[in-house]
Amino acid sequence: MNWKARVLTLDGLMPSLDDANRLVWGTLADVPEDAELCFLGLDEGKACFAAVPPRGDATPRMANPQLWSLMSTLQPDDLAIYGGARSLADWHARHRFCAQCGGDTKLAKGGWQRNCTACEASHFPRTDPVTIMLVEHEGRLMLGRGLGWPEGRFSALAGFVEPGESIEEGVAREVLEEAGVRVRDVTYVASQPWPFPSQLMIGCHSHADSDELTIDETEMAEVEFFTCEQVGAALEGNGPFVAPPPHAIAHHLLQWWMER
Amino acid sequence: MNWKARVLTLDGLMPSLDDANRLVWGTLADVPEDAELCFLGLDEGKACFAAVPPRGDATPRMANPQLWSLMSTLQPDDLAIYGGARSLADWHARHRFCAQCGGDTKLAKGGWQRNCTACEASHFPRTDPVTIMLVEHEGRLMLGRGLGWPEGRFSALAGFVEPGESIEEGVAREVLEEAGVRVRDVTYVASQPWPFPSQLMIGCHSHADSDELTIDETEMAEVEFFTCEQVGAALEGNGPFVAPPPHAIAHHLLQWWMER
Repeated sequence: MNWKARVLTLDGLMPSLDDANRLVWGTLADVPEDAELCFLGLDEGKACFAAVPPRGDATPRMANPQLWSLMSTLQPDDLAIYGGARSLADWHARHRFCAQCGGDTKLAKGGWQRNCTACEASHFPRTDPVTIMLVEHEGRLMLGRGLGWPEGRFSALAGFVEPGESIEEGVAREVLEEAGVRVRDVTYVASQPWPFPSQLMIGCHSHADSDELTIDETEMAEVEFFTCEQVGAALEGNGPFVAPPPHAIAHHLLQWWMER
Repeated sequence: MNWKARVLTLDGLMPSLDDANRLVWGTLADVPEDAELCFLGLDEGKACFAAVPPRGDATPRMANPQLWSLMSTLQPDDLAIYGGARSLADWHARHRFCAQCGGDTKLAKGGWQRNCTACEASHFPRTDPVTIMLVEHEGRLMLGRGLGWPEGRFSALAGFVEPGESIEEGVAREVLEEAGVRVRDVTYVASQPWPFPSQLMIGCHSHADSDELTIDETEMAEVEFFTCEQVGAALEGNGPFVAPPPHAIAHHLLQWWMER
């Protein structure tokens, strides 16, 4: 038996990086005595923890330019550890009270649960299923630019799966809402966890019946169809649009489409 | 403009059925003035609502024998409406307080959101992704009986996708935890919403490297391999086990496997 442990150094939800851009870890002595600790797993014979920030935000923080830059900087193994830790710590910080009765909740089971101290309700970290879809029409691919995105950046349309929907129904509704076209033959391609804040990205492919679009201007700045050649050039960094970065499932979906 | 509306009659979360086993609907006059109403959609020219029960349970109610019986009784269209309404009303009833600050929350956007009256945090109905998997080894199919299930009832193994996992990783972890074998070549088959309380069932197929099982006895009463003939007989109601009922995705997965 030993007590070898390390605690991920976080400032709020942001990590500290050393000169080699690796995650910085402290010890149990570095965290306040009353800090709540999430158990992340064992690594190199040490138990790894992350401390829950004292207070959460009213809304979860989605991916922003600072986070995109961080994702490009971190090594893949560090990114996986940080992503999981961030997602869990963020959820705990935003769930210090019981949604059922308003009482105080306490971290339980190493961070995979919170229990209410008043009504004894148990609460579990949530993962929101999100569909992200390639939409094809006569060999061209529909991609969109969301409101507020940088000029020129295009990616696959995406949206939360709503209660009562299958994955396939979610894809069809989302494309109809955002681009005004009906799709058929929805197939699953790949999935990826996305910890900003805590989504399960479900990548699909579908065929559109038409390329006449009616764009939802409250969500999308532009939606366009691109040829194979244009998508290929964009993935190589010299196309008519800026493709999603390599750590996003959208990048993988575009590559998958090109290889077909 | 008119005010044609109807409100689903619920006793807690259970529906009322008429003599023909159809859902019973009331009017806006039938609900208390302070009842929170979820907008379910338009049907036959009327706006359909469900009222949120005054108080939720400390834990969500999973499917139980009473609900399985109800599912067999309801017509498919009524089951879809009731499932969506129940899932939404249950979530609202269990989220009357803000997890971020403990303040009171109020239903917003027709029932697709709750807002905190104190810190202004927004909360959204949750949908939990769950993998449910066929596991095949040399032409035989692994099925299990959960603790507390009736003697003889077998179905596909299943489990929540955890934060930080892809669908494929979730399948592999779940089978390793519950049956002690490694799987490979995980493929997606189909998905289904499951409103008890609010899950997205993601059906997959995989291959096991071995049929030597180490069963997790805290979750599973039995895990066994069955031949094609045994599964076919069970689906026809005269096999060595009781197959899952037609409205469960597990039934569909078994049929899909038989047709391959």
